[in-house]
Amino acid sequence: MTYCIGLRLNAGLVFLSDSRTNAGLDAISTFRKMIVYEKPGDRFMCLLSAGNLSISQSVREILQVEKIPAGEGEEPISIWNAKSMFDVARVLGSAVRRVYQQDGPSLKQAGIDFVASFILGGQIGNEAMRLFLVYSAGNFIEATRETCFFQIGESKYGKPILDRVLTPTTPLDEAAKCALVSMDSTLKSNLSVGLPLDLLVYRADSLQADQVVCIDERNPYFKMIHETWGERLREVFEGIDDPVWDGGDANHPLMVGSERHEPMKKIGHAGEKIV
Amino acid sequence: MTYCIGLRLNAGLVFLSDSRTNAGLDAISTFRKMIVYEKPGDRFMCLLSAGNLSISQSVREILQVEKIPAGEGEEPISIWNAKSMFDVARVLGSAVRRVYQQDGPSLKQAGIDFVASFILGGQIGNEAMRLFLVYSAGNFIEATRETCFFQIGESKYGKPILDRVLTPTTPLDEAAKCALVSMDSTLKSNLSVGLPLDLLVYRADSLQADQVVCIDERNPYFKMIHETWGERLREVFEGIDDPVWDGGDANHPLMVGSERHEPMKKIGHAGEKIV
Repeated sequence: MTYCIGLRLNAGLVFLSDSRTNAGLDAISTFRKMIVYEKPGDRFMCLLSAGNLSISQSVREILQVEKIPAGEGEEPISIWNAKSMFDVARVLGSAVRRVYQQDGPSLKQAGIDFVASFILGGQIGNEAMRLFLVYSAGNFIEATRETCFFQIGESKYGKPILDRVLTPTTPLDEAAKCALVSMDSTLKSNLSVGLPLDLLVYRADSLQADQVVCIDERNPYFKMIHETWGERLREVFEGIDDPVWDGGDANHPLMVGSERHEPMKKIGHAGEKIV
Repeated sequence: MTYCIGLRLNAGLVFLSDSRTNAGLDAISTFRKMIVYEKPGDRFMCLLSAGNLSISQSVREILQVEKIPAGEGEEPISIWNAKSMFDVARVLGSAVRRVYQQDGPSLKQAGIDFVASFILGGQIGNEAMRLFLVYSAGNFIEATRETCFFQIGESKYGKPILDRVLTPTTPLDEAAKCALVSMDSTLKSNLSVGLPLDLLVYRADSLQADQVVCIDERNPYFKMIHETWGERLREVFEGIDDPVWDGGDANHPLMVGSERHEPMKKIGHAGEKIV
């Protein structure tokens, strides 16, 4: 399994990926899922991948040479000459479809689904930063102001904190912290997501990666997050009042509000309905 | 979809269920997923169900009259004369298999999977409280000291808080609070889980339900949890240091620890590897 996050904020982009790959529980390996394509001063692009490793590796390989037709008399479009991130996403979609043409029928014959998904983000020249989610059919969607992040892989455990904290105005360092908390929750609940992590921060308009760091279990900041977050969460939890059942002198009695709906079905011996 | 939780603590049992049922996004209904079977002073049993509603409703109906063979010369075992919760789980498994015999072939013909799962907990006479997770094949597992809760349905969003907080020694009211926080995270992240909620608390050896409450959006306690939890979570998040990149004078520099692994692959224009 995999967990990858891509964030698009006003201040820049943040990418985080784990490195666990497994084929069953007894075949666990470490594969990096982040790759950066960069021509400093001209373009910065980062790709995160999830799904079948043979597919995503092939896509990454092909992406470097993939070309799609341009207007008449113009050079075909590659990731290195594309004028917009939208075109780069189209080139990526085309690479995915090429791998599908090559491997899809044999995979199908073997009963294996063609499963792969990608987060692609970056900036080219004077264009604004953009972030895409590319599906296994090669189609894609783009992040907007309302939905400023994408997740691929094992995304559910780590989604609540992103939902609660992130907005487009979140500063970059805080966003990196948020991504790491989200990853920490996922690591705790799912064995098939594992260290080391790759974290990349891109500052708007810099046209090259700003911070790139590989995080393993000895990283002091991630260790601090891992220990502090769980502890503080328990403190907050303990700080919230327990329910009060009778509604006597409490501010938030739990029994209030129960009159609106019928209580659930309660069945007594011999099938008579008690309530 | 559905989200249900069953907890087995030293002090008692806690059950919580939502009530959203959907068949596609345009057919959303409210169905209660908790049912209590009770003979005060003799036995208390609570059943939560997830999966295909036609299956779980049929199982609930059949369960009231289902019997499995007992030893020679003894009366067949029903949920009302079973001497142990283990036998009740067997009766439930038998009811699930009966529905499979009745509906399974037609469902298969229609391309519909036979999907249903159940949390069953309770206490009979002098036996200890027990909690089971029953699968759609009628087989089941039991909660232990190490794994003291079961979830069915949309379980991932709400699992981190259970993992971090619950132990067998958690007091009942605190456990109810924990279940509600877990439900709140799930409600926030998944539209297919919805109010009202059914919450039931059973105190050990009481042989009847202790607290039963139906919680809708006007319930003051759940409203308080909903507002407070998100707010405090953000406060905790803000209270954790942002990463420091250069490792200068900080306690938890993020860049430290990055020497152990190669940085991820970085590809420059024309395919040369930059790093």
